[in-house]
Amino acid sequence: MLDHSTTDSFPMNLHGQSFIAGQRLVGTGSPFHVISPLDRAVLQGDFTTAGEAQVNSALLAAAGVQTEFAATDGQTRATFLNAIADEILALGDTLIERAHLESGLPKPRLEGERGRTVGQLRLFAQLAAASSWVEARIDPADPARQPLPKPDLRRLMQPIGPVVVFGASNFPLAFSVAGGDTASALATGNPVVVKAHEAHPGTSELVAEAIVAAVKKVGLPAGVFSMVQGSGRVLGPWLAKHPATKAIAFTGSEIAGRALFDLAASRPDPIPVFAEMGSLNPVVILPGALTSRGAAIGTALAQSITLGAGQFCTKPGLFFTVESEGLTAFREALAATIAGLIPSTMLHPGIADHYNSKCSSIKAHAGIKLLATTTTEADPNATQGQPLVLEITAAQFISDDTFHHEVFGPFALLVVAKDATERDAAIAKLGGQLTATVYGDDAELATAQGLVATLGELAGRVIFNGVPTGVEVFHAMQHGGPYPASTDSRFTSVGTAALFRFVRPVSYQNAPQCLLPAALQDTNPLGITRLVNGQPSSAPL
Amino acid sequence: MLDHSTTDSFPMNLHGQSFIAGQRLVGTGSPFHVISPLDRAVLQGDFTTAGEAQVNSALLAAAGVQTEFAATDGQTRATFLNAIADEILALGDTLIERAHLESGLPKPRLEGERGRTVGQLRLFAQLAAASSWVEARIDPADPARQPLPKPDLRRLMQPIGPVVVFGASNFPLAFSVAGGDTASALATGNPVVVKAHEAHPGTSELVAEAIVAAVKKVGLPAGVFSMVQGSGRVLGPWLAKHPATKAIAFTGSEIAGRALFDLAASRPDPIPVFAEMGSLNPVVILPGALTSRGAAIGTALAQSITLGAGQFCTKPGLFFTVESEGLTAFREALAATIAGLIPSTMLHPGIADHYNSKCSSIKAHAGIKLLATTTTEADPNATQGQPLVLEITAAQFISDDTFHHEVFGPFALLVVAKDATERDAAIAKLGGQLTATVYGDDAELATAQGLVATLGELAGRVIFNGVPTGVEVFHAMQHGGPYPASTDSRFTSVGTAALFRFVRPVSYQNAPQCLLPAALQDTNPLGITRLVNGQPSSAPL
Repeated sequence: MLDHSTTDSFPMNLHGQSFIAGQRLVGTGSPFHVISPLDRAVLQGDFTTAGEAQVNSALLAAAGVQTEFAATDGQTRATFLNAIADEILALGDTLIERAHLESGLPKPRLEGERGRTVGQLRLFAQLAAASSWVEARIDPADPARQPLPKPDLRRLMQPIGPVVVFGASNFPLAFSVAGGDTASALATGNPVVVKAHEAHPGTSELVAEAIVAAVKKVGLPAGVFSMVQGSGRVLGPWLAKHPATKAIAFTGSEIAGRALFDLAASRPDPIPVFAEMGSLNPVVILPGALTSRGAAIGTALAQSITLGAGQFCTKPGLFFTVESEGLTAFREALAATIAGLIPSTMLHPGIADHYNSKCSSIKAHAGIKLLATTTTEADPNATQGQPLVLEITAAQFISDDTFHHEVFGPFALLVVAKDATERDAAIAKLGGQLTATVYGDDAELATAQGLVATLGELAGRVIFNGVPTGVEVFHAMQHGGPYPASTDSRFTSVGTAALFRFVRPVSYQNAPQCLLPAALQDTNPLGITRLVNGQPSSAPL
Repeated sequence: MLDHSTTDSFPMNLHGQSFIAGQRLVGTGSPFHVISPLDRAVLQGDFTTAGEAQVNSALLAAAGVQTEFAATDGQTRATFLNAIADEILALGDTLIERAHLESGLPKPRLEGERGRTVGQLRLFAQLAAASSWVEARIDPADPARQPLPKPDLRRLMQPIGPVVVFGASNFPLAFSVAGGDTASALATGNPVVVKAHEAHPGTSELVAEAIVAAVKKVGLPAGVFSMVQGSGRVLGPWLAKHPATKAIAFTGSEIAGRALFDLAASRPDPIPVFAEMGSLNPVVILPGALTSRGAAIGTALAQSITLGAGQFCTKPGLFFTVESEGLTAFREALAATIAGLIPSTMLHPGIADHYNSKCSSIKAHAGIKLLATTTTEADPNATQGQPLVLEITAAQFISDDTFHHEVFGPFALLVVAKDATERDAAIAKLGGQLTATVYGDDAELATAQGLVATLGELAGRVIFNGVPTGVEVFHAMQHGGPYPASTDSRFTSVGTAALFRFVRPVSYQNAPQCLLPAALQDTNPLGITRLVNGQPSSAPL
């Protein structure tokens, strides 16, 4: 047992184990500890990496209850998701305190994130109860059709099977053990095995405990949820290649996401991987907007890039402008706002080291200009990352692909073009993005159809006159974009549509009523809207 | 120029070239001819394989018109699809004659398939015109929300970009140049590049000519359609790896489909592959049904497995029963029906050779019994495949994975189990399937929930008391299943939902009305049903 820092005063009695189908098990793999980014102290908790046999047990338990869990009704799954939310809230300050120590994120931010996590669980509970996600379609029989009778055909979405969720480091609650991936997989009747992020294993243990309690409270089979501790490098291949795994959800770096994608694609039976791998989130500022409110836009973007130490997938990392009179006010406001900020603690030492070395190497490029940074130096003992905005010409941007990749942290690059043609040539160098933003005044937007079409092909979400940070958890959200923003641009990892990642359609032809899922029965017992002969209807047949 | 057979009397003047964005070009690759399976004669037509630069030109032309084609309205695309249907019908008997010579399929079957092809085009034209496939979702703004105002968020499906379609040999019209893949890609605004199947290049040329004529008639940019001639081995990698390709649709063998999947997954930017790779299509016959109507079921299945020389993806290739009194009548009816049939010409010599050698090797297994075959021997000069049904015990089936893979052609295997437990253990050996069928009387079906749940996890479509051949092109059809039935079980390649393969969602946040797609504008000018705050509504906002 190592000594613990004084910041770790809250008593938690973490056991450091994995949960395999409701059982707490000491991992048979390597032990590990977690270091707080706040002061680099070793935190309380003797964690152990799950062994291969333990990982396999979790997946086999998931597969073993797949049929039973898929057959539960929406109301039962709603009760389950709400029970998870209740159990998480019941953890109280313990959860916030531990997440703060492990992630370095400020407590108010974590309280907000807990609210979002609980809100997501309750939203998916509503969706589970409402059952409309099954997208029922009914084509009634036509026995009189020539030359052959038309059969009765009914189709609905069914759970795809056990889902493996990899927790994200930058959202230790909302995209981790009980985050959006887990909520959408459970809502649709898929057992879940979570790989806890090794940067916040204690937070993960607390939340897993909450889920296991909810499983018991609702009387579900224990195999519907497991959580394994350890690093992705060790556990990733076991989880991704196991025959019981039917889909993978991941939020993190392009390197790790692509590694999982490659493992899944090389299986004898390839499975879908939903990896959300971040983005540069380009922002185009049109000349009219720069002239009319360049300073306000500069201030807003300075706040957006430094929010949460720039560790959001939607942090705007690239600003495209053309030379124009408003540019000076924009530059000055951006620089002044950032100058006055205090550097923030980043998620863990590895991320901060990576950020600092990326910044150094980019700064060293010939012809690059320093546009903004904090007057306060970053404190390496507090794992801080120093906000930095640099400026280059569009010509430089076009010719050097160093600049075409994300820098995770409070960094952005202003790219100044001679004219709109050069600006668009610079934008054309980008790969797929989660978001793309346009600032423009009414008159110039009215003629920006071409630019907006380009951004719609480039990104999953196009934002007008606002920052891309802040991802609403609603019906119309798309969080995912062409590669490398995500591995599957056809799906979202945020919002209610996120549940479509974990379902697949099945048709029933000439089935007796008693064997049809409730959603497809003549009487429409769930009262859902169904596509009957291609037309929406909530009436019985 | 080679001599042509007397069966090739119909004058067609095929030029043998590829169509690159409306231009006819002699391929820079190898020349080839096509041999009729009917009599192994070389058919008229000097075809040339497209070269790599020509393939690249087709894809770059597609990418070049992507934005323009995506911006066309649904009515324009509907007019285009209907024009293709008209041009195909205008080909008249020429098309049927050539498809008959190239595929060996009987003319009445090809006339039916033409009807289906034209019907599909007109159905997708309706969908394009109706525009409801964009699945519009609107979450209106809430400026009063605390702590932050809620933005206005609107989401719709947009075309994914250029789609490469690989024509299938077994449906030279309905799953080839202007088949369901092409129709659903064009309906949603994606340019298409078709790789013609090398077994029917003349049929492909005729249909491509029809599409090119429709492109001109409607005034679309030429890049929306290209067709390249040559083998998949040569052209597949160029098509699958080109940066302009955004999705691939394929129907054919598991080996070829997996090769395309692997190419696409290994790209720097992986793209989706929708490969429908066939299936064993297991049929479970319950004891009550065997007793009450074993002979009728035997006759129906005999007809289903030999329909189209057994060359349907949904041909039932495995019959599971338990020992029971009705089995004798089933066996006898199956054997008698098949005995009286005349072997049919298969699609091409390679398929027939493969079928015959597979049959020989399976027949040679110890303990296997001959259940049914034709009294007439297959004529190798007419490329015939001899229908064959063998019988084994479930124990043998379980222990030998030779039997767990599709035999493409008029072949099936009866698997007889001691009891339902052994039968279910045999079914558990199967990989993903396009279809699974149950024959049962009302009473035994009423207690078959467990079996039906198993089949719903195994397959994309579950059929009751009917044969799986015959795939309806409607809203509730699911044609696709877990691997290896298809590479992406979340999508269908038949039915109106097939168009969702080629779209991805994009959200617009706080967009001015003038920059929103019509589907998302306040006034709802398209009159479609939209999800407003999560509730279906066709009213203006």
